[in-house]
Amino acid sequence: MRKLFDKLSLYTDFYALALSQGLFYQQKHEDRVVFDYYFRTNPFDGGYVIFAGLENLIDIVENYQYDTDTLRYLREQGLYEPFLEYLANMKFRANIYAPQEGEVVFATAPVMRVEGNFIEVQLIETLLLNLINFQSLIATKASRVRQVVGDRLFIDFGLRRAQAWSGMHASRAAIIGGADLSSNTLGGYYHGLPLWNTMAHTWVQSFDDELTAFRKYVDSQPNEQLILLVDTYNTLQIGMPNAITVAKEMEKAGKRLFAVRLDSGDLAYLSKKARKMLDEADLAYVKIIVTNQLDEYLIRSLDLQKAPIDGFGIGTKLITAHGASALDGVFKMSLYNNKPSMKISNDLFKNSLPGRKKLWRFFDKEGYFYRDGILLYEENECETLYSAVFANQYTHVSGLPYENILQPVMENGKRLMEKKTIQQIKAYAQQRLTLLPEEHKRFENPHTYKVGISASLRNVRDDILQKHRNW
Amino acid sequence: MRKLFDKLSLYTDFYALALSQGLFYQQKHEDRVVFDYYFRTNPFDGGYVIFAGLENLIDIVENYQYDTDTLRYLREQGLYEPFLEYLANMKFRANIYAPQEGEVVFATAPVMRVEGNFIEVQLIETLLLNLINFQSLIATKASRVRQVVGDRLFIDFGLRRAQAWSGMHASRAAIIGGADLSSNTLGGYYHGLPLWNTMAHTWVQSFDDELTAFRKYVDSQPNEQLILLVDTYNTLQIGMPNAITVAKEMEKAGKRLFAVRLDSGDLAYLSKKARKMLDEADLAYVKIIVTNQLDEYLIRSLDLQKAPIDGFGIGTKLITAHGASALDGVFKMSLYNNKPSMKISNDLFKNSLPGRKKLWRFFDKEGYFYRDGILLYEENECETLYSAVFANQYTHVSGLPYENILQPVMENGKRLMEKKTIQQIKAYAQQRLTLLPEEHKRFENPHTYKVGISASLRNVRDDILQKHRNW
Repeated sequence: MRKLFDKLSLYTDFYALALSQGLFYQQKHEDRVVFDYYFRTNPFDGGYVIFAGLENLIDIVENYQYDTDTLRYLREQGLYEPFLEYLANMKFRANIYAPQEGEVVFATAPVMRVEGNFIEVQLIETLLLNLINFQSLIATKASRVRQVVGDRLFIDFGLRRAQAWSGMHASRAAIIGGADLSSNTLGGYYHGLPLWNTMAHTWVQSFDDELTAFRKYVDSQPNEQLILLVDTYNTLQIGMPNAITVAKEMEKAGKRLFAVRLDSGDLAYLSKKARKMLDEADLAYVKIIVTNQLDEYLIRSLDLQKAPIDGFGIGTKLITAHGASALDGVFKMSLYNNKPSMKISNDLFKNSLPGRKKLWRFFDKEGYFYRDGILLYEENECETLYSAVFANQYTHVSGLPYENILQPVMENGKRLMEKKTIQQIKAYAQQRLTLLPEEHKRFENPHTYKVGISASLRNVRDDILQKHRNW
Repeated sequence: MRKLFDKLSLYTDFYALALSQGLFYQQKHEDRVVFDYYFRTNPFDGGYVIFAGLENLIDIVENYQYDTDTLRYLREQGLYEPFLEYLANMKFRANIYAPQEGEVVFATAPVMRVEGNFIEVQLIETLLLNLINFQSLIATKASRVRQVVGDRLFIDFGLRRAQAWSGMHASRAAIIGGADLSSNTLGGYYHGLPLWNTMAHTWVQSFDDELTAFRKYVDSQPNEQLILLVDTYNTLQIGMPNAITVAKEMEKAGKRLFAVRLDSGDLAYLSKKARKMLDEADLAYVKIIVTNQLDEYLIRSLDLQKAPIDGFGIGTKLITAHGASALDGVFKMSLYNNKPSMKISNDLFKNSLPGRKKLWRFFDKEGYFYRDGILLYEENECETLYSAVFANQYTHVSGLPYENILQPVMENGKRLMEKKTIQQIKAYAQQRLTLLPEEHKRFENPHTYKVGISASLRNVRDDILQKHRNW
């Protein structure tokens, strides 16, 4: 990834810096810690999350630094000189363990583990949460849209309605989750996203009439996948007849119109009428692409109405993750100087899990994802997984094949993972989703994928909990 | 504003670039156009919007350019050489008219007018929409929170849940809309936002016991506005007694604990119990600050329960604009080579308004905002405002005092507006909100502020509409 901007070490809550200064004065800043990243609920009332954002995080922490400008600013905010000197020389030297980008992951399971000096792990908290929470959220939303779009065309074109500047990350995650193309040029520049081109209303408005506008568009645009926007004045009475005229003219020149685009009005009604007009003009190959406040639910509704649509541009509701504007990921300390640590909550669902841990994914006999198990790092086998919350709930997993989901991606601040293309990450996500049983992908009340803990981990946790009753 | 990153000319939908290339080949790229920015609905089912984001937009378009890297990328995407050469030399030379940042504005009224060459106006569309839509959305959300918070403390600390990198803009807009402080350090660096410091759970977890952690915190932090986080293990049985012990120790040293913070559990219940404990320990001056999934509705609910809370940290629901993740702002061509132009929609509420226009705000006799009127630019008086949609609906405004809301902020690509501090913009927003009658600020079914059009504008529009029936 090309460099985005160079002050990201300040992209942190100020209290993380103030706290780090406190650690420095207590000589605790280089104490060793382990932190876990996990989210508490799957977004969109869904059953899974597509893990994304890792490449961008690694790229930033590899080059983590406080430069002269940022240090001057922190001095103005009242931080002390010896601490600023320490920051000036600090490099990020921690170890990071994570799944591959595009992995299917589940609520409550520790999805990332960061091990390092207290200060460096604390300082990247906001950055890590911000990137992983958001990209995973959008990739998940996009994967839901992909579910209903099937083999048809799925375009991200939400940039203008993005929460500025989130478009940079949203479009990347949209492709990972399943979009074919994006309208986001800067996303293309930084992340290599495949770009989409289409016509805009202003083009039509700038000519005396729509037919001339269409003809000039054919003249001046690459004719590959050419799309005519037909709703500037009146879709069925003006736009479609003009598009058909131009498609026929293109045929005479040995070319083919790729599609018409409907951007307003009742898309079910208009797409049926438009399809009929195209077919009657022997233009069965001309596709119909629609764009207008769509999401996975509206596409499903259009399909139920048998609307003959070949492609969908998804804007606002994809780019802002309509229905769940944030993933509730958290980053919690689980080990402090080799001593298990946890955050105890009045809400018993919110207790974090102590200790250095790993995540095993168990597969059933057909090769599908079956259970995720959270084990202590030193454990090498697991017979039974227990619910972390509910009394007397457990599952046997002994003998089942498993994968170790958290792999080292950074060691002593050095990248271990190789860079992948956006298409490789996308393919991985799609492949992993095929291993997730259908009932977990359902939109309505999806079956809960079970994430359990080992007996040893349960013991470590219960030792701590016994000292802190909260009921 | 210090420089953020330098490739923002690519922060555009690719089809805007492709369309611009088409304009170039049709020799239409330097035709003169006027575009209007407006939004169709007030977000959050509310009655108004706080206009924000202008300073950042002006700052970017002032320095708008395609550098060697971006041109190379566009070449790879298939754009042609003569057009790329044109881009290489293009400067943004348009005129921009807008309200002051912090102005109270309303759905359907043209809030910005951009006049310039077709190509430059088209190319900044996505950037303008992205910035103004998002900052206005967040400023509006923050102003709603400020309504219920009143004189108490209101802190933005949502950075970690922001849609990455939207935190940069969200925190700025949160302050404009009414927040006192922000946790966002990079926002402080770029925008001069006042920063907030507080304690984190990890601090407590890194000591053997909470009391030691509190004492060491007092030792190592600036003691001004010191806040102790009391819910790491058990708020009422452990955290509050420890905080009281430390507050008493601070008193002996001639200091005062500023506040305790509750970050989980039932905030109404816990704040009442905590207040009682503090008061019984003669610590009436110690404030209670709460943070946990709050928004304007939950704060109102806490107030109805008479929860004794002195400050609120608002995270996810502010930074992502919970309840309306995007403002539906659009940017529509209204004049092309001096000829009025409009986008006609099957949805009659969505027709844009043609012509070069201005926006007058009329005041009632008490000096409150009364009506907004959209007039043709050349009009110098207005007797009557008509509904742009409903037949036979109008209001007389003749003789009422008015303000011309759209002022020139950029001329020939040169900034005219002066830079303001974030506190000046915030103060302007608060002052203007006092002029908006209460019934428009209500959360539930706010009274609709009426925005009408002049008779002359109506005539211009109806001339165009007559050629394009759509019903």
